[in-house]
Amino acid sequence: MSLDHAASKPHERLAAALSGDMAAVNDMIAARMASEHAPRIPEVTAHLVNAGGKRLRPMLTLAAARLCGYDGPFHVHLAATVEFIHTATLLHDDVVDESDKRRGRPTANLLWDNTSSVLVGDYLFARSFQLMVETGSLRVLDILANAAATIAEGEVLQLTAARNIATTEETYLKVVRGKTAALFSAATEVGGVIAGAPEDQVKALHDYGDALGIAFQIVDDLLDWQGGAGIGKNVGDDFREGKMTLPVIRAIAAGDAEDRVFWTRTLEKRVIEAGDQDRALALLDRHGTLASTRDDALMWADRAKTALAALPDHQIREMLTDLADYVVARLV
Amino acid sequence: MSLDHAASKPHERLAAALSGDMAAVNDMIAARMASEHAPRIPEVTAHLVNAGGKRLRPMLTLAAARLCGYDGPFHVHLAATVEFIHTATLLHDDVVDESDKRRGRPTANLLWDNTSSVLVGDYLFARSFQLMVETGSLRVLDILANAAATIAEGEVLQLTAARNIATTEETYLKVVRGKTAALFSAATEVGGVIAGAPEDQVKALHDYGDALGIAFQIVDDLLDWQGGAGIGKNVGDDFREGKMTLPVIRAIAAGDAEDRVFWTRTLEKRVIEAGDQDRALALLDRHGTLASTRDDALMWADRAKTALAALPDHQIREMLTDLADYVVARLV
Repeated sequence: MSLDHAASKPHERLAAALSGDMAAVNDMIAARMASEHAPRIPEVTAHLVNAGGKRLRPMLTLAAARLCGYDGPFHVHLAATVEFIHTATLLHDDVVDESDKRRGRPTANLLWDNTSSVLVGDYLFARSFQLMVETGSLRVLDILANAAATIAEGEVLQLTAARNIATTEETYLKVVRGKTAALFSAATEVGGVIAGAPEDQVKALHDYGDALGIAFQIVDDLLDWQGGAGIGKNVGDDFREGKMTLPVIRAIAAGDAEDRVFWTRTLEKRVIEAGDQDRALALLDRHGTLASTRDDALMWADRAKTALAALPDHQIREMLTDLADYVVARLV
Repeated sequence: MSLDHAASKPHERLAAALSGDMAAVNDMIAARMASEHAPRIPEVTAHLVNAGGKRLRPMLTLAAARLCGYDGPFHVHLAATVEFIHTATLLHDDVVDESDKRRGRPTANLLWDNTSSVLVGDYLFARSFQLMVETGSLRVLDILANAAATIAEGEVLQLTAARNIATTEETYLKVVRGKTAALFSAATEVGGVIAGAPEDQVKALHDYGDALGIAFQIVDDLLDWQGGAGIGKNVGDDFREGKMTLPVIRAIAAGDAEDRVFWTRTLEKRVIEAGDQDRALALLDRHGTLASTRDDALMWADRAKTALAALPDHQIREMLTDLADYVVARLV
C-alpha cells in the first residue's frame, strides 16, 4: 500500500480507476439534460448536476459493470440513468423539505421553485427512462422500475411516519431502503446485469448496494445527533423536524412514562423549549441507543463487505470493500 | 342508425363496446395503486382515480388494440399505464396551478397538498413504468418514455411562455403537443404496437391520437373565451393567468401599437381592470381570431378522421371518427 493509497479516500480511488468511464457519463449527462424546446430546463438542473457531488451512485454502476468484466457501452447509459433518478429525487425532495424550512416567509419565490422543481424533476425522470430503454435490457428496466416505486413509497412512508412516536424499527428500515438503499442496490445490480454476470454475482452486487445504502443512511441519521464534518446540516435538524430515526425509536421503546410525555411534546406536537435537545441526547445516552445504532451501522457495513466475497478478485472489489469501511468511518 | 345511437355520445358508445376491457382496466388500476407500505398513497389517489372521469386515454389504447385485432392481455396493462401517467400529471399540475390560485391564503394546507401531490404522483409514474415493463415490448417502452419526456418539456415550456406576448404559434403547438397530444398519440400508438399491427396502421393510430389531442386542446382554449357546458373552469381564467393561447397570439400579431400596450399590461404585467376581459374579447372578434382558431380545430379533427382511413373497417373505427367530430362539436 503506497502512501498515496493510504491518504486518498476510497471513492476518490474509484473515481481515478474509472476516470474514462466517468468522463463519458458526465458527457452523457450534459447532452441528455439539454432540452431543445425548453431552455429553462438546463438552467434549473445545471446547479444540481454541475455542483460537483461525489457521483457515488453512477460510480457504483460503473464499478459493478467493470468488476464483472463488462466492456461497454451501456454501463455509461445506466450510470447516467441512476444519476438522473437521484437528481430528480433531490428536486422533488426540495419541494417537500422547503415547505417546512421556509414556513412563515414570503412564498412567491418558494412557489416558483416548487413549480420548476416538480416539472424539471419529471423531465429528468423521463430522460432517465429513455436512457435505460436504449440499453434494450428488459431486466434492467424491471430493476429500475421497481427501484423507482420503492423510492416513492419510502418517501410517502417517511412523511406519514414523521411526528409519530409509534413508528417501529421495521418502518424505519423500510423508509431507509426507500430513500437511500433502493437506488444504491439498483445501481450496483444493473451494472452486473448489463455485464451478463452469473446470478450469484448479480445477487451479491444487489446485496452489497442494499447494505451499503442502509449503513450510509444510518450513519447520516446518527451524525444528526453527534455532528461531524461535511454532513451539510445542523445537529438536531431531524429532532426539530420530528423525524423518527433509529436512536430515537429505540430510546422511546426503552423509556418510561415521563420520557413518553417528553417525546410526545417534542416530536409529535413539536413544542421544543430551551434545553430539550440536550435532554433528548441525554435520553439517547442513558438508553445506549447511539451506541446500539452505531453497532447496526457497522453490522450493515460488514454485510456489504461479506456480499463482495462472491465477486471476482479485482482492484475494484478492494475499493468497494474500503468504501463500506469508509461509510461508517465517519462515526469513529 | 338507431335512436339510441343518435342519442348517445361517441365516448359512451366506445365505453359500451369496450366494457369488458374497461372493467379489467379499472380492476388493474385499483390493484396497482395500492401500496402495502404506505397506506397514504391510495387515500390520495382514490379521489382522482375514482372520480369517474371519462377515462378517454385508456379507452383510446383499448380501442386501438381491438381495432387491430388484438386479443389481449397486455392492452389492459397499457391502458392502465396511460391512465396512471395522466393521473400523475394531474397531481403535479395541482402543485403548479394551486400555487397561483391560492396565493395570499394560509399555506399550511397547500404545502401538505403539495407534498402529497408530488410524492404520490412520483409513485404513480413509477407504477406506470412497472406496468409497461410487464408487456415485454421495448418498442412500447420507447414510445411511452418519449411521451413522458415530451409531456414534461411541454409543461416547462408552458411555464416560460406564460405572460410572454412574444410567444409564437409554433411554441403554442409545442405546448399543446406536450400537455395533451403526446399522451393521446402514445395511447393510440401503443395499442397498435401491442397488437402487432402493420407499420402504416401504427403510424395512422399515432397521427389520429396526435390530431385528436391537438383539436381537443384548441377547443379547450377556445371555450375559455366562449364559455360552454362542462368545461370545469370560468370564462377568462386563461386571460387572467396570462396563458398564451392561439386566439390571443393571433390577435397580438394582427394588432397595432395601442393593442400591444393593452396586451402588455394585462398579460405580461397582469394588471387587469374592470372591462378588460370584454375589451380583450372585442380585440379577438375584430381580428377574427376566434373564428380562425375554430377553423384550426376543425382542420385537426379532419386530420384525425383522415388518418383513420388506413385502419380496418370496423365498428370501433366509426366510433373514433365520431369522437373526432364530437371533440369539436362543443364549439358549434
